[in-house]
Amino acid sequence: MGGAGEIKAVCLLSGGIDSSVATGIAKAAGYEIYALTFRYNQRHIRELESATKLARFFGVEEHKILNLDLGKIGGSALTSPIEVPEGKTVERIKSGGIPVTYVPARNTIFLSYGLAYAEVINANFIFIGANYVDCPGYPDCRPEYFGKFQEMANLATKRAVEGSPVKIKYPLIAMSKAEIIKKGHELGVPFELTWSCYKGGEKACGKCDSCILRLKGFEEAGYEDPLVYDK
Amino acid sequence: MGGAGEIKAVCLLSGGIDSSVATGIAKAAGYEIYALTFRYNQRHIRELESATKLARFFGVEEHKILNLDLGKIGGSALTSPIEVPEGKTVERIKSGGIPVTYVPARNTIFLSYGLAYAEVINANFIFIGANYVDCPGYPDCRPEYFGKFQEMANLATKRAVEGSPVKIKYPLIAMSKAEIIKKGHELGVPFELTWSCYKGGEKACGKCDSCILRLKGFEEAGYEDPLVYDK
Repeated sequence: MGGAGEIKAVCLLSGGIDSSVATGIAKAAGYEIYALTFRYNQRHIRELESATKLARFFGVEEHKILNLDLGKIGGSALTSPIEVPEGKTVERIKSGGIPVTYVPARNTIFLSYGLAYAEVINANFIFIGANYVDCPGYPDCRPEYFGKFQEMANLATKRAVEGSPVKIKYPLIAMSKAEIIKKGHELGVPFELTWSCYKGGEKACGKCDSCILRLKGFEEAGYEDPLVYDK
Repeated sequence: MGGAGEIKAVCLLSGGIDSSVATGIAKAAGYEIYALTFRYNQRHIRELESATKLARFFGVEEHKILNLDLGKIGGSALTSPIEVPEGKTVERIKSGGIPVTYVPARNTIFLSYGLAYAEVINANFIFIGANYVDCPGYPDCRPEYFGKFQEMANLATKRAVEGSPVKIKYPLIAMSKAEIIKKGHELGVPFELTWSCYKGGEKACGKCDSCILRLKGFEEAGYEDPLVYDK
């Protein structure tokens, strides 16, 4: 497929903007893309449709959708019935608290599956679209966390024992949403296929934290959001 | 419940000997036990029954059985149709290769869910029955791997950010199967409820790697295995 056809990358593709841009970066580097999407929340079913369309757009070698049984564990507005917050998003987020939409150990679980998948297909990289600039409250979105996950991964697998551990790539880590959107535009990422709303209705709600951050990002980037909003 | 009723431990309980003894150790320390079992392989369905009986025996506060979608990833004799090996178990294992029963990133995935569960119930510990003495071929059974997982976990969760990261306990890490069985006897672990066979028939096969190691362990420990074998 791509220019460096032998080099494989597992891309964690949720269907949102960040994971789409991270996948776009892997694609632009010429890697063969193996997309991995997690189904863990009824509300986010819309994201799965987006992930499927995006995987097709990026011409991935394979797209796996894994069911995660996170609902049984709960502990988050995204996996159990806690109210998804609306309003004062930016103030609330910048205040440094951990949002109720935080899903316990989510990135650790996602990357663990990524590690397993990378091991099986013999991939060199795992791409994750995490970033902490606009959303500093998530413990597992900090660069030092990913550094430690890498160190652990360097010991965890057969591939690592054999001398070539998979490398975790988090190219958006220090970018704001506006910068991510600009980067996506440069790369031709089809934002009309992405989905961000926490509510998963017919149209994006425009009111939840995720919609607010997305709209603010497009505004700051100077582009129009191609999604239709419910208002 | 126990003497130190406030202290909670998540115990990864597969239904095998090692996880049962690790759970027995947590129980003897007086912790409230929250058992976590993973369903990831049809062949091992017998282990789930054992895990359920053992959870009842240990009087756990809660027992969660999570479905892991590992079959879609494959890459192991335990998750996809590769032949489970028989014969020359000890020679093969001691030769240092990685067994076909190795499941890519298994302990990383297990511990990640343990981390999520510990975060939600506010547990102090996660107990895992891993050991490398009789089975040195698994990369994610080495003590240095668990050390690095701990360092990663120290950054991964809300609880960690708030100053009290969950502690990963792997008390069997340097014990042989015989030593683990002796320890279990001391603690009154009901070995008749455990299950080890990779094949998951009505009776244990007595021929797969797991049965061979179990039988050898009982012999070396000087106890009789209470299970009935198919021969």
